[in-house]
Amino acid sequence: MKAWVFDGKLSLREVPEPCPGPGEALIRVRLAGICGTDREILKGYSGFRGVLGHEFVGRVVKCEEKSWLGRRVVGEINVVCGECSWCAQGLRRHCPRRTVMGIVKRDGSFAECVALPLRNLHEVPAEIPDEAAVFVEPLAAATEMLEQVPLKEGTRVAVLGDGRLGLLATQVLKYAGAHVTLIGKHGWKLDLARSWGVQCLASGEVARVPGIFPVVVDATGSPGGFEEALRLVEPRGTLVMKSTFHERASFDTAKLVVDEITLLGSRCGSFPTALRLLREGHVTTQGLISKVFPLGNGMEAFQYLENSACLKVLLQNSA
Amino acid sequence: MKAWVFDGKLSLREVPEPCPGPGEALIRVRLAGICGTDREILKGYSGFRGVLGHEFVGRVVKCEEKSWLGRRVVGEINVVCGECSWCAQGLRRHCPRRTVMGIVKRDGSFAECVALPLRNLHEVPAEIPDEAAVFVEPLAAATEMLEQVPLKEGTRVAVLGDGRLGLLATQVLKYAGAHVTLIGKHGWKLDLARSWGVQCLASGEVARVPGIFPVVVDATGSPGGFEEALRLVEPRGTLVMKSTFHERASFDTAKLVVDEITLLGSRCGSFPTALRLLREGHVTTQGLISKVFPLGNGMEAFQYLENSACLKVLLQNSA
Repeated sequence: MKAWVFDGKLSLREVPEPCPGPGEALIRVRLAGICGTDREILKGYSGFRGVLGHEFVGRVVKCEEKSWLGRRVVGEINVVCGECSWCAQGLRRHCPRRTVMGIVKRDGSFAECVALPLRNLHEVPAEIPDEAAVFVEPLAAATEMLEQVPLKEGTRVAVLGDGRLGLLATQVLKYAGAHVTLIGKHGWKLDLARSWGVQCLASGEVARVPGIFPVVVDATGSPGGFEEALRLVEPRGTLVMKSTFHERASFDTAKLVVDEITLLGSRCGSFPTALRLLREGHVTTQGLISKVFPLGNGMEAFQYLENSACLKVLLQNSA
Repeated sequence: MKAWVFDGKLSLREVPEPCPGPGEALIRVRLAGICGTDREILKGYSGFRGVLGHEFVGRVVKCEEKSWLGRRVVGEINVVCGECSWCAQGLRRHCPRRTVMGIVKRDGSFAECVALPLRNLHEVPAEIPDEAAVFVEPLAAATEMLEQVPLKEGTRVAVLGDGRLGLLATQVLKYAGAHVTLIGKHGWKLDLARSWGVQCLASGEVARVPGIFPVVVDATGSPGGFEEALRLVEPRGTLVMKSTFHERASFDTAKLVVDEITLLGSRCGSFPTALRLLREGHVTTQGLISKVFPLGNGMEAFQYLENSACLKVLLQNSA
């Protein structure tokens, strides 16, 4: 099968189709999403080698448990041992023996097929089209902060960054009852959020505003954004950090200590929650897809992402 | 009166005695402690100008409310408006209009006398000698994390840094039922903690240990210590940051995000709690004082701190 392999350089290769073990399924990928993390991996993040990609929707084509055959699925990216104390506590995503699809020691979804354990799979309800289902993984990540940060009805939350994750986080927070202000650099992305009834500010407009939000979400994916986010949190407030990047971030520790800020790392989240939000219409992915490339044109897709201030770019497998 | 004034350079000066306003007291300082923050101010932290010093014990010598005269007191360092929403919420230490003794726009305690509002003062019980009372401010700061971090009996906590703050934090955490491991660089400081029954490790011994503590307290006061502390927190764990320093800290955001670490800034704490811990003998200051200098020898005291791996250095006012 064809797959985009990263071994220090990204290239399209002919590789053997994965062979699903017991309890695993082989999924024919239909759509795969390119994430900021994929671009960071190309810069060296996580030291990953193998087939890239961790966002997808596809159909089960091979599996010992026949009931799964033909089902349309999305898949959780952490493949865990199921036996350690972390797994026993229900914190499977922190299993120290985990592999992570397309990120840590496990081949990913920028390929014709991908293999995953059945327990990682979630069937996609018929009401959710592929073009929305492919957002389940990042949307789940966006919902994770609802488990971590106590939000009251009307809590003022600033989301910094009007990219894919910022726009998903904005919708999730709005659904949770927060009063969201989205802060970004791109007029047309802010306009999209405004069409959902969200208050938006251009980055420049808040440049001199001191800490005024009890909760700030940094979805900029850049060290500079982190610093700006820290500036916007009020004393005793919470700064949620969503993005991983290869560079280090530096910050003013005095601000964190003197204002007793809580900085919260937040990663993967619940797929069932994400599927429910999509099915019930609390989150829309309309307007979030900038371009769809055939799987074979992955390099072009990455270049498109690099050169344009776009939103989600997808790879489509027609094989 | 004599006072150590910082105006970009530290010098002993003859300045007018502060004139206490209504609701304020003039306190004759007996002992004042030099804190890491004072040294950071000399490097430029907080942009402070005025009489340095924020740790002291003294006696009220001038005050409209006669009942306070002659009382032996310690004083909270944040002088607040009492009227804003922060003050109303009981978060007075975060009052945006506050001044902070010896740190932000208010003269401090490296002087013969210092003025503070009566509501900032706490009488020192007779059982607590001056040499212990002078630790109330940093001890209160060490207790603050008990309000912020839920600790269960036996929670494993690493305290990084065997300095003054680390040794106070260690005792406070032990009192709260945590299983504390103190990690430091100085054999004799670790021996002191061992004499309290605390488990200690030399920094080198943990150099290659991955994140194994659910709670880590960074009391190193240095950017390097922060990075080491982050490395020692287990997934979903909490890193408490206690010290303010002038330099910036840089860190690996991926560790914070992927492991969903909570980083918690923690500053000033409750004076009544600190006084109770000293009175009831849960915290000892025995062995924590390295040297006492006469007030006039402040420069020598700072040089002593700079050049020796010592613990607390005090200034004594005999005037």
